[in-house]
Amino acid sequence: MDSFAIALDLGGTQLRAALVNRRGQVLKRISVSTAASEGPEVVIQQLSDAALAMTDGIDSRRLAGVGLSAPGPLNTLEGIAISMPSIRGFQNIRLRERLEASLHLPVWIENDGTAAALGEWRFGAGAGLENLVYITVSTGIGGGIVADNRLLRGRLGMAGEVGHMTIIQNGERCACGNQGCWEAYASGTAFTRRARARAAQHEQGVLSESSSLIEARDVFAAAAQGDPLALELVSEVAEFLGLGITNLLHLYSPEAVIVGGGMASNFEVLHPVIQSKVQQAAMNGFSEVPIVRAALGDNSGLVGAAALVFDAVPADSVESSHSVLVSSTRTATS
Amino acid sequence: MDSFAIALDLGGTQLRAALVNRRGQVLKRISVSTAASEGPEVVIQQLSDAALAMTDGIDSRRLAGVGLSAPGPLNTLEGIAISMPSIRGFQNIRLRERLEASLHLPVWIENDGTAAALGEWRFGAGAGLENLVYITVSTGIGGGIVADNRLLRGRLGMAGEVGHMTIIQNGERCACGNQGCWEAYASGTAFTRRARARAAQHEQGVLSESSSLIEARDVFAAAAQGDPLALELVSEVAEFLGLGITNLLHLYSPEAVIVGGGMASNFEVLHPVIQSKVQQAAMNGFSEVPIVRAALGDNSGLVGAAALVFDAVPADSVESSHSVLVSSTRTATS
Repeated sequence: MDSFAIALDLGGTQLRAALVNRRGQVLKRISVSTAASEGPEVVIQQLSDAALAMTDGIDSRRLAGVGLSAPGPLNTLEGIAISMPSIRGFQNIRLRERLEASLHLPVWIENDGTAAALGEWRFGAGAGLENLVYITVSTGIGGGIVADNRLLRGRLGMAGEVGHMTIIQNGERCACGNQGCWEAYASGTAFTRRARARAAQHEQGVLSESSSLIEARDVFAAAAQGDPLALELVSEVAEFLGLGITNLLHLYSPEAVIVGGGMASNFEVLHPVIQSKVQQAAMNGFSEVPIVRAALGDNSGLVGAAALVFDAVPADSVESSHSVLVSSTRTATS
Repeated sequence: MDSFAIALDLGGTQLRAALVNRRGQVLKRISVSTAASEGPEVVIQQLSDAALAMTDGIDSRRLAGVGLSAPGPLNTLEGIAISMPSIRGFQNIRLRERLEASLHLPVWIENDGTAAALGEWRFGAGAGLENLVYITVSTGIGGGIVADNRLLRGRLGMAGEVGHMTIIQNGERCACGNQGCWEAYASGTAFTRRARARAAQHEQGVLSESSSLIEARDVFAAAAQGDPLALELVSEVAEFLGLGITNLLHLYSPEAVIVGGGMASNFEVLHPVIQSKVQQAAMNGFSEVPIVRAALGDNSGLVGAAALVFDAVPADSVESSHSVLVSSTRTATS
């Protein structure tokens, strides 16, 4: 009998839930806007409601548990969200305890970058590898690392803040307050910011007409049409991506670098420049490591959250895993 | 009955051997110049001779084995030195096999940065921690990482090439061929190079007299006397160190950063600037991580090489560990 995990992905703007089977397949999925300004109680209720919506029609004895991916820092051992700047008042919340109380299922929590790395490792582009680096490039740049066949966690599970390595001393100001972070050059936000500024200076070209409204997809579309400015912008962000990826190769020595997040939807366009930058900059023994696109798209984190559950609860012990948590009330109503 | 490990530390200029007990104490130590230009056969003989010199007067039944620290990349599982640019012709050498054949003891090999991290972890400044970053700052910058209570190895044991993360895009040329590496700014070599160039431009000051002969220690001595140029140079290298250490905090999330290598002999002078740079640049939750000096000095690598042996051979199984390797010849002559 197949069993399932409920996966939750808590972001500053969106909150998503999915029902995932042991083969990593997403069977159902919903997405709601995070009530980020309403404080922790409302957001916890949203998480709980979203999880419950996934259980309709599923025998609770087939639910192995709940996995939650959330922005760090988290204390994953105790299931506490230490701080979540994008959600008002979300500090030192005993997230696991709260969700276990309302869902009557065991809950595991993990940092979003690490959860997505786990998803790609178990069911995606990193299946079968012992060492990989996953990066997500969108508003910011996050990441997760598998080293020596294990997730790399570090102190308080906070390892892998790859977006905040300085690549240019005294460079652009980053959202974190520091200067010159990789994220301040290679994220989707940085890409769009440069595109708007550069297009505003240009007299000609498809990007110049309404420069303040340019989005990343507009630049990629213009590049596909051969617009010189767009091509320059795409090449530039790919160079920055390649520079940071070279650093990650030297630091973690993965067998592959897996690229996810919004910018990965244009991976084929970025890849040749990224790879050539890596080949030029990386040392012998590092420069041939493949750089690939995430296989699970925007589901890496959800599938990884489910994998947390499956790793903890073997297929043949689903019922015993949460028997202590399933209260009589829940058993009666399910 | 106490047992011992023979520790070997193979460098491009020096080759060292030590006899180390299970408390990490170095009981004997010798050092010879590496015959780097004479090729692998001569160097293997040097290693073997140095190891044998440590066994004089020691009952072979009390020798748990041999640990070897060497510059990477190594295949530590199979005991192969893949490439060692500083030693002529040292490529794809089955180092473990060769040494086991001549020493009749089990041999473990490890990258120098990782071995030194292990030494500090088991017996030095990192004792009891679950996560640490060790860096050695001298000619270059190397490192080793403990994460989640294990040594971080990565693909081919090549993780932790911390010196070759770019901190300044299109910056100074590094020995590795790339530009802007941390090593090209914060190593002892970079420090001395800047001191010579800057002193040659200066009319006044204690450093200006024979600028082309300046060594790192001269700059620290002049700084202690209040020489403005020397103070500026020291502050500058400490800033670069702090910048790279901030990156490592974000990437590995250690509980401490341990600084070894030649530059660490002036750690007290560098530390306030390093720490203040980290406090300014690191994100919340990272900025208070202590940065400390290596406790084992230039023995971190040797003691770590010995720790490889002790980790693999528990105190009560020394004899059985190498009984298969101890040939009758060796038993008869020892």
